[in-house]
Amino acid sequence: MSKRLWFVPLLIAMITNSSLPDASAQARSARERVDLVVLGGAIVTMNPMRQLIEDGGIAINGGRIVAVGSHADIDQKYKGKQTLHATGKTIIPGLINGHTHVPMVLFRGLADDLDLQDWLTKYIFPAEAKNVTEEFVRAGTRLGLAEMIRGGTTTYCDMYYFEDAIADETARAGVRAVLGETVIDFPVADNKTNAEAMAYVERFVKKWQGNELIIPAIAPHAPYTVSEEHLKAARAFSDRTKAPIVTHISETKREVHDSIMAKGTTPIDYLARIGFLNDRVIAAHVVWPTPEELGILKRLGVGVIHNPQSNMKLAAGVAPVPQMLRDGLLLGLGTDGAASNNDLSMWEEMDTAAKLHKVFSGDPKVISAQEALELATIRGAQALHLEKEIGSIEVGKRADLVLVDRSDLNQIPSYNIYSDLVYASKASGVQTVIINGRIIMQDRRLLTLDETAIRAGARVFRERILKSLSNPSSPE
Amino acid sequence: MSKRLWFVPLLIAMITNSSLPDASAQARSARERVDLVVLGGAIVTMNPMRQLIEDGGIAINGGRIVAVGSHADIDQKYKGKQTLHATGKTIIPGLINGHTHVPMVLFRGLADDLDLQDWLTKYIFPAEAKNVTEEFVRAGTRLGLAEMIRGGTTTYCDMYYFEDAIADETARAGVRAVLGETVIDFPVADNKTNAEAMAYVERFVKKWQGNELIIPAIAPHAPYTVSEEHLKAARAFSDRTKAPIVTHISETKREVHDSIMAKGTTPIDYLARIGFLNDRVIAAHVVWPTPEELGILKRLGVGVIHNPQSNMKLAAGVAPVPQMLRDGLLLGLGTDGAASNNDLSMWEEMDTAAKLHKVFSGDPKVISAQEALELATIRGAQALHLEKEIGSIEVGKRADLVLVDRSDLNQIPSYNIYSDLVYASKASGVQTVIINGRIIMQDRRLLTLDETAIRAGARVFRERILKSLSNPSSPE
Repeated sequence: MSKRLWFVPLLIAMITNSSLPDASAQARSARERVDLVVLGGAIVTMNPMRQLIEDGGIAINGGRIVAVGSHADIDQKYKGKQTLHATGKTIIPGLINGHTHVPMVLFRGLADDLDLQDWLTKYIFPAEAKNVTEEFVRAGTRLGLAEMIRGGTTTYCDMYYFEDAIADETARAGVRAVLGETVIDFPVADNKTNAEAMAYVERFVKKWQGNELIIPAIAPHAPYTVSEEHLKAARAFSDRTKAPIVTHISETKREVHDSIMAKGTTPIDYLARIGFLNDRVIAAHVVWPTPEELGILKRLGVGVIHNPQSNMKLAAGVAPVPQMLRDGLLLGLGTDGAASNNDLSMWEEMDTAAKLHKVFSGDPKVISAQEALELATIRGAQALHLEKEIGSIEVGKRADLVLVDRSDLNQIPSYNIYSDLVYASKASGVQTVIINGRIIMQDRRLLTLDETAIRAGARVFRERILKSLSNPSSPE
Repeated sequence: MSKRLWFVPLLIAMITNSSLPDASAQARSARERVDLVVLGGAIVTMNPMRQLIEDGGIAINGGRIVAVGSHADIDQKYKGKQTLHATGKTIIPGLINGHTHVPMVLFRGLADDLDLQDWLTKYIFPAEAKNVTEEFVRAGTRLGLAEMIRGGTTTYCDMYYFEDAIADETARAGVRAVLGETVIDFPVADNKTNAEAMAYVERFVKKWQGNELIIPAIAPHAPYTVSEEHLKAARAFSDRTKAPIVTHISETKREVHDSIMAKGTTPIDYLARIGFLNDRVIAAHVVWPTPEELGILKRLGVGVIHNPQSNMKLAAGVAPVPQMLRDGLLLGLGTDGAASNNDLSMWEEMDTAAKLHKVFSGDPKVISAQEALELATIRGAQALHLEKEIGSIEVGKRADLVLVDRSDLNQIPSYNIYSDLVYASKASGVQTVIINGRIIMQDRRLLTLDETAIRAGARVFRERILKSLSNPSSPE
């Protein structure tokens, strides 16, 4: 025991007076002027070597990371127009919430402890039918964005209605997102027909493509709510525009059963056969894939988003995450909408993911704290097909960074930085958030959103929602 | 849908200008002088009717609740030496952490993602052998107490070594606890033999019995680490002194298997047969009881503590909690030690308990948010055999109260107070904590503990622990 040094992970690599290779190329006698320099703090890079830098520094320019190294080295080589001092903090890549329906925060806690089908068809769909407007979506998005920023989420992937308004609010708040406008075979709040939805998506994608923060996408809801013809049209649209496809697949046993009954095969196999799946698809849930279907997802490069808390709360089931990890699937983590969670904290999602798969498999080694953090950072980036841009602290990547306080009593003492982050840190420990090189939250103060106005907006919609649901003259 | 008023739980009972029956007896024209009055806030009483009072008031005297009613009524009838204004807050009974090993916070994150047996025998037991002293226990207890208070825990049940020092620290901090001194059949930090342990327990129980906050207990570790003779002696001690018995039962499949091999029967049946179980026993974990054993626990009035996060993290298994709820067992909730969790938040424990049993049973209705809160309050009190003293906000009970802020963005909007508390509230939302009528934390400032000193103490022991484990000359 004594010589085994089993606590080695905590001995964070000391890199003193020498920056990482990419950064050393930048070295020069006169300090290079950059937009922002972050000095001090323990950097959890999540780079391919999973390097940890104890007293680090990061130089940021034009929204991207231009150097990562030791505190001393970065300080010597770079002068920031702005400097953030991060001593005593942990610096991690911004967390990636791979699947949500952000405006649904306004339905948080409206209907809980119900079957997924009842929850969806008896409560959520009717509540949406009566309440979802562009104004609702804007108020909900602002509330959800504020909660996500406060919890260190810098990128999220969404599927909802009026996604153009969500894009507008998200870009104003300075948050990165893949935003999928819903395509579904029944009339919804923003579009009443498939033709209307496809026209909306056309305009939406055209408008936002090329934006530094917003990646517009098409979101055919699920194989059981969108016809084969419309799924194929969505794929053709994606082929033409290169827009990602956001969807739900194999969330419940019932969906799989119904697919076999109606289509003669399971959902993923069906989608592969009709030529829907490829490496622009981001599939949420994937709770009930067959082993063959895992092979299909891997072969076609489909991104998969695991939503443990939502799957637990709705009793949808437990996705085969350990197998997905072994198979090297492009796997990320998401909260799902707040109506089935009931929060947007990626910290609880990481913690739950690690614990759920340990107990469900009976093997506590099946997923480690480090792997759980990977799901919320670099692997999450892979699942959104954005791994060249985000998910790690590396030169050339977008500067999406989160400074986490490590002084909360629940984080003391610390022996292993991954354990500390996944099992003991909370959303409330997030101090400062940088997205695309811009400071969005500093010392827990939101810089791009007005919390007072957000609260007031949420109050207004809460009253309207309650009234709409108790009003006997409102449509069924 | 429209007429069904399915959001009724949120329409909190309005009790205006009339207090609850017990309180009305206190009414008089001149205001009665009491120690503390809490005015305003939504009271979640957890009384037998599960009454909710929207704009409530509570009068406290001599450490007990003397009246519960509306804000106006309490204000009219009582004058507090101290007054707490709670408008905008939710007031709940103090949370009850039914099972922990509080000083183990100092091992938080030291060894994770391991099998329970490896974790315990290769890491935790050796680390304890090299580090646990009275001083260690005091530093760990103070750290754990501070974390628990900040998370709204007002009563905890412990099992560790040097429990007299834990009692001393806990009483000083003003926290309520059932504290079980460990009895185990191998030499441990404080006692080397069973005779020493029994003598320690004798002194310990004698010293603390009658204390308003501390309930001293004997804690035979588990049926597989304590002989039949010593278990019987522990029971005899409890019969003589009326001290509770704290123990672990049926935590792993292996324990059950080994019990069948060694004793010819399963652990609970074995303990019942040797006459160990009764209504003073508090059994942690109980992951693998047979249906017959659930009957034994119910018949004998044994308290059971469910530890979902620890059971998940160590892959111990999933306790049959829905069946325990249906059977009406005395069931509470605990965090277990921070080394297998890795925090002491009862908020995450409630959230996880509800979600885990939904997904594991495949039925999202199997445990509701209200039931999860019950496990951490009134049912937890029953499991500790303390339901006459704590667990609800009722006249005559000890004044253990928690004021929870409801303004965090992750709690907005709120439609159902139980959903809000269990699925969306966090330890960080706890504002003010009252134990036995005394304000222990106010507006997140600890009044009985010194956070700076606690941090410094944790740092010292972290260094010692690391040194002890890397020192080749230290004993194996």
